[in-house]
Amino acid sequence: MVLRIGVVGTGAIGREHINRITNKLSGGKIVAVTDVNKVAAKQTVEQYQLDAAIYPDDTALIADPNVDAVVVTSWGPAHESTVLAAIKAGKFVFCEKPLATTAEGCKRIVEAEMKHGKKLVQVGFMRRYDSGYIQLKKTIENNEIGEPLMIRAAHRNPTVNENYTTDMAVTDTLIHEIDVLHWLVDDDYNSVQVLFPRKTKYAHSNLQDPQLFTIETNKGIVMNVEVFVNCKYGYDIQCEVAGEEGIAKLPEFPSVVVRKDEKLSTGILNDWKYRFMEAYNVEIQDFIDSVTKNGEPQGPTAWDGYIAAVTSDACVKAQVSGEKETIALPEAPEFYRNRAKLSV
Amino acid sequence: MVLRIGVVGTGAIGREHINRITNKLSGGKIVAVTDVNKVAAKQTVEQYQLDAAIYPDDTALIADPNVDAVVVTSWGPAHESTVLAAIKAGKFVFCEKPLATTAEGCKRIVEAEMKHGKKLVQVGFMRRYDSGYIQLKKTIENNEIGEPLMIRAAHRNPTVNENYTTDMAVTDTLIHEIDVLHWLVDDDYNSVQVLFPRKTKYAHSNLQDPQLFTIETNKGIVMNVEVFVNCKYGYDIQCEVAGEEGIAKLPEFPSVVVRKDEKLSTGILNDWKYRFMEAYNVEIQDFIDSVTKNGEPQGPTAWDGYIAAVTSDACVKAQVSGEKETIALPEAPEFYRNRAKLSV
Amino acid sequence: MVLRIGVVGTGAIGREHINRITNKLSGGKIVAVTDVNKVAAKQTVEQYQLDAAIYPDDTALIADPNVDAVVVTSWGPAHESTVLAAIKAGKFVFCEKPLATTAEGCKRIVEAEMKHGKKLVQVGFMRRYDSGYIQLKKTIENNEIGEPLMIRAAHRNPTVNENYTTDMAVTDTLIHEIDVLHWLVDDDYNSVQVLFPRKTKYAHSNLQDPQLFTIETNKGIVMNVEVFVNCKYGYDIQCEVAGEEGIAKLPEFPSVVVRKDEKLSTGILNDWKYRFMEAYNVEIQDFIDSVTKNGEPQGPTAWDGYIAAVTSDACVKAQVSGEKETIALPEAPEFYRNRAKLSV
Amino acid sequence: MVLRIGVVGTGAIGREHINRITNKLSGGKIVAVTDVNKVAAKQTVEQYQLDAAIYPDDTALIADPNVDAVVVTSWGPAHESTVLAAIKAGKFVFCEKPLATTAEGCKRIVEAEMKHGKKLVQVGFMRRYDSGYIQLKKTIENNEIGEPLMIRAAHRNPTVNENYTTDMAVTDTLIHEIDVLHWLVDDDYNSVQVLFPRKTKYAHSNLQDPQLFTIETNKGIVMNVEVFVNCKYGYDIQCEVAGEEGIAKLPEFPSVVVRKDEKLSTGILNDWKYRFMEAYNVEIQDFIDSVTKNGEPQGPTAWDGYIAAVTSDACVKAQVSGEKETIALPEAPEFYRNRAKLSV
Repeated sequence: MVLRIGVVGTGAIGREHINRITNKLSGGKIVAVTDVNKVAAKQTVEQYQLDAAIYPDDTALIADPNVDAVVVTSWGPAHESTVLAAIKAGKFVFCEKPLATTAEGCKRIVEAEMKHGKKLVQVGFMRRYDSGYIQLKKTIENNEIGEPLMIRAAHRNPTVNENYTTDMAVTDTLIHEIDVLHWLVDDDYNSVQVLFPRKTKYAHSNLQDPQLFTIETNKGIVMNVEVFVNCKYGYDIQCEVAGEEGIAKLPEFPSVVVRKDEKLSTGILNDWKYRFMEAYNVEIQDFIDSVTKNGEPQGPTAWDGYIAAVTSDACVKAQVSGEKETIALPEAPEFYRNRAKLSV
Repeated sequence: MVLRIGVVGTGAIGREHINRITNKLSGGKIVAVTDVNKVAAKQTVEQYQLDAAIYPDDTALIADPNVDAVVVTSWGPAHESTVLAAIKAGKFVFCEKPLATTAEGCKRIVEAEMKHGKKLVQVGFMRRYDSGYIQLKKTIENNEIGEPLMIRAAHRNPTVNENYTTDMAVTDTLIHEIDVLHWLVDDDYNSVQVLFPRKTKYAHSNLQDPQLFTIETNKGIVMNVEVFVNCKYGYDIQCEVAGEEGIAKLPEFPSVVVRKDEKLSTGILNDWKYRFMEAYNVEIQDFIDSVTKNGEPQGPTAWDGYIAAVTSDACVKAQVSGEKETIALPEAPEFYRNRAKLSV
Repeated sequence: MVLRIGVVGTGAIGREHINRITNKLSGGKIVAVTDVNKVAAKQTVEQYQLDAAIYPDDTALIADPNVDAVVVTSWGPAHESTVLAAIKAGKFVFCEKPLATTAEGCKRIVEAEMKHGKKLVQVGFMRRYDSGYIQLKKTIENNEIGEPLMIRAAHRNPTVNENYTTDMAVTDTLIHEIDVLHWLVDDDYNSVQVLFPRKTKYAHSNLQDPQLFTIETNKGIVMNVEVFVNCKYGYDIQCEVAGEEGIAKLPEFPSVVVRKDEKLSTGILNDWKYRFMEAYNVEIQDFIDSVTKNGEPQGPTAWDGYIAAVTSDACVKAQVSGEKETIALPEAPEFYRNRAKLSV
Repeated sequence: MVLRIGVVGTGAIGREHINRITNKLSGGKIVAVTDVNKVAAKQTVEQYQLDAAIYPDDTALIADPNVDAVVVTSWGPAHESTVLAAIKAGKFVFCEKPLATTAEGCKRIVEAEMKHGKKLVQVGFMRRYDSGYIQLKKTIENNEIGEPLMIRAAHRNPTVNENYTTDMAVTDTLIHEIDVLHWLVDDDYNSVQVLFPRKTKYAHSNLQDPQLFTIETNKGIVMNVEVFVNCKYGYDIQCEVAGEEGIAKLPEFPSVVVRKDEKLSTGILNDWKYRFMEAYNVEIQDFIDSVTKNGEPQGPTAWDGYIAAVTSDACVKAQVSGEKETIALPEAPEFYRNRAKLSV
């Protein structure tokens, strides 16, 4: 069985997903596209030689009985209504982050999905599909390092452009750690405090960079997460979990080891695209497979999208207040439990 | 365009390729299978829910006009005739190693293909599709370490069964280094000498293990290649190229870094299957893509299969003689030049 | 010229220094010892076959005209009066940490030394003599990573005994980071906040373990320092400095690299003694050399001892309050400037 | 007790030993020096402010009843007669390599020492005092990797001057591996074969560089040792021992780990002096300590010097012949057994 997919939003990320579904993965077929920019939609169909209908809007695309699943890659503010419409139509949804731009919006999706009675929605947090994070989670679950007590993480970009503002360190960057860290330790966030260290000269005038987030969980795990988006030296994702018996750390991205010029060195990536390339493929293949074989996606849920939104709000608040801010998360509904299962 | 594939041989490796083409990759479809064991062929079709014809033999399968390309995963002695038949029918061939069990057999295939006038055959040397080897080759081609002078390589298995004999260190194990090393440095082999170090107690009585191969190339590069198939500690592939300006080495297989029990450690695989899993996927996807898009495969050629056979023969001879044996390779025909191009 | 040394306190650390001065280093000679336990003093003289006078107390030892320098290795509360007496007598002093048990005590020593007009006192912070920290400081001073912005450090012990209390995480453990981190970046501390993560089950009931200290400097550098004294896996000292251009980290303690049992591993020490063994030797040799050749010690000064005491007090206060506490350090007197010079 | 030392030869290495005995180590005192260049001898005494007699030649120096031990740091061809004279006088000798320039010369020293009836001579092979090699030997002796089967080693210099000839790859460079490798595995050499890979463009016209030595031992261990003295990238010593249970490798020289410019790197030394600096100190301190405390040196013996000479001769012969050459070593006399004991 082939999953017939409609894509809402044919911008960069939309086209990447179209390309991977069409040319790299198995079991999915793009049968419909739409974009606010009609020309872009048409060009995409031509570029990838798709046998796909072009719709004027998401409503029409969702209504197409040939569409089994909707991939939402429009701009953020449009996500909520598309996802709600897809749920209403009983169609599967793969929605790029954010699920909705507000916690309330995410809540509405969660409620719609629960009302529908079956999981339809997967949110595009791809790190859970990265082999390094998967190994790290297995190491924790196999109790190799004992109960987790502390996490040190870093999210570093070589540089960002002038449009990147201080709050985007949360909403665009930290958001990935927000999703992956609670999943890693199967725990819920409780509070966050933000510290602004001495600012790098490479950050533009309106941007605080680097930033240090201290996030505490219900079980008392303390997570020190650094966001440093003008670190100059490369794209670098670090995550180290300290437990009662030992410490486990993400592997470095594999690279040829060179002895040259009085240095023993390996390469560090300069672009995030390469770092999670394979994770994106695994993520989309898993969405296709679990939907076609199990009748529901098994990746990050709408509830995970809601967690991300609530936590993100508290982090932005903490950036402004300088105080420890509460992350007020209700307990996960029964519907969304077992979220910590290894998905791959 | 979908590449319609017939599979000759539905044993373990055949089924793996069927699975990957059907469930993981894009652009290929299994339309026909055959196996000397009819029951196995039928079971395979059922297991993977294939919409595929079951043929009594390779001749019938090749004759099916729906078959664009043939994947040869039968046992070694059957390869040559299937490949020759496919070439005669003008069909693309992906043939697992060995291309043929003798150098003469490989030669016949090379000649048939040249006579046909277009490249049809790819041999299943998957290492060229491993991201580590690809990085290593790029490092050399980008002249980062200068002209290559020496290579140190090792191929280690934790253990082998009682059927593994001394010559299989060449034909089953070293064969992968034979293919990948000349490709890495774009050079031809000239001679080989074998040394038997002190034997490990874990090798059964008929097997010399470890073995050290010293291979020299036309340009004078000396390659020290260790084959150690009862090394106990894991499956481990090492390759280090020393050049005039520096030294480059394959990355270790990425693994979580753990501090525990007074050790800082990363995992080593215990099974070769995991080591080149991704390379197999990339290899088959590349075969499908290059055949459908460029009209010919761009991976290891029949000539590479011939090089492997000639070199393998000399290595086995050197095991017996204890002397330096010549590897008598004619210059590659124009038809097969440009073999060193990066394929991925 | 040989430096004639009197040792006050012949306990474990005293005997180690006696041993190294007598049997490993050059230019020093133990000519006098004293200890509150007379038997211990006598046994020490015999054990190391010293040609040394045994004095009833520090006053008598200091008064001996044969004594050029005093090594203070008594218990902490006795340090201040011995150091003050030695300064009064114009003798050089090497005092193990703490210089005095209170900031006021340290201040009195600072004032006495300044009044004396010449530097006489070195405090036993040996990390500045560790080759790893020296390399790290050179890396920073050579501007290889640009201006320092953040530090991540960890001080981990496998286990501590029942007498180790929560405040000792500061006074016994963090104290080394307190000394070495401001020296590394040539900056002064400004504030500290302490966080208690989930407690490890291996900590006894009265002890909070691990602990996380967030220390900020005048220039805005944020230092996240973990103290984890029941980490189980080994003795491990980590320090990583993030700057505007890159990040530099202490080397791991060198250890044979082993491939065995599906692991690639290096050893981690289980005892702090081995970690800084060589640093202790270099430290004492440097004290002897600089005193005999330059007429004053060039290692950590009385002012550094004062900084450690003031900072330590604030850290203990922050453990109790849970709040950010100010570290109120006056500017260093002219007398103590140039403290950031590489001493080795 | 202080060991009173006379130094024969006040060139570079002689002065370094004088400096370390005088200013860094314990228990030794330079009481006499001599050099063919009288001015150099006098300058050395002044430079290091020695209280030492200056003798016209080694005979006079050895005759001085104040001299307990002789350090031989003259040029190679003079070693034999000085060592023989010292043995005759019953004085301890620390002789820099080579013990004598011929195997016969070494044999004469061995016989003289045995006739004397007590071990007096230590040869200056400092690698056995390097902490990395010591750890590696302990790893083997503790049976952590099982019986050794193969060794891979490399001795690389960034560059050599025009006076360095092909045979010096053995006599100046490989000589250190010759000493340390048989000690590591407690075995005797049996044969050697040399291979000349493609020559680096950085080697001058008369020099073959790199060179590959294949040395086999009595137990069948095969050692692949690379000498590469124009490797450009740095001074690098590698040694990896493969055993039946696992593989152990020398640690890299410790160095700060830096993330910068898209590279994760550590430094490689550019000069051999830094690599074994500490080993030289430990070596000389051990000579002083064992002589004064045990009445005989416990480092590399005259027999080790003889092994080095015989092996070195065979290696040079193999460079010329291109054939496998026998290393004809008699069994060690009882007098020299137990040579594999850990000395530190």
